[in-house]
Amino acid sequence: MTNLDPEAGYVVVINNFDVAPANADRLLETLAEGTRQRIRMLPGFISANFHVAKDRTRVINYAQWRSEADVDAMLKDPQAREHLKKAGEIATIVAPTYCDLRQTFDAVIVAI
Amino acid sequence: MTNLDPEAGYVVVINNFDVAPANADRLLETLAEGTRQRIRMLPGFISANFHVAKDRTRVINYAQWRSEADVDAMLKDPQAREHLKKAGEIATIVAPTYCDLRQTFDAVIVAI
Repeated sequence: MTNLDPEAGYVVVINNFDVAPANADRLLETLAEGTRQRIRMLPGFISANFHVAKDRTRVINYAQWRSEADVDAMLKDPQAREHLKKAGEIATIVAPTYCDLRQTFDAVIVAI
Repeated sequence: MTNLDPEAGYVVVINNFDVAPANADRLLETLAEGTRQRIRMLPGFISANFHVAKDRTRVINYAQWRSEADVDAMLKDPQAREHLKKAGEIATIVAPTYCDLRQTFDAVIVAI
């Protein structure tokens, strides 16, 4: 399970992949396979979290990395590139957003 | 701290707010205030997680809700609307993406 904690200091990379609805599940599996087989083993990888839009026109990866340099190194890794190329063949990869998690709010639990 | 767990079955709503870099922190505070004062008390709220892009041109809220109906009810709540209106005065609110978290990968921890 992935934790979101502003104190952790990770780089958050949000990746949008626009896709034909009929290909959403195939795209999800392609991205998951690349993560399972290669990307999660690379230095600085913390997590990847794959979402499918309710209308199935988009897959979103909410990823955590130790640093931007680690993301850059992943993007140059030949095996990771091969997996991303496969995803690019069935989806349009939107430029990712690199960001910092700044504030987190969780539900107020009312004791009875 | 927020947990990302595909088994939880929450609706994930990813909200992008495009903003002038000089206003990014003010936008973050406006959104945080609305969440603290009102939105987190509404039925079905699970979490809100505010990110600022490294280039400061975007603030992203990764939010979890119990159901889409709860999000719809929040969007009709007069106090929540007042807070969102304030955010809209300093940012361009991009149409949110409603999605399901489908798969999560965490770093492989190698024992030595």
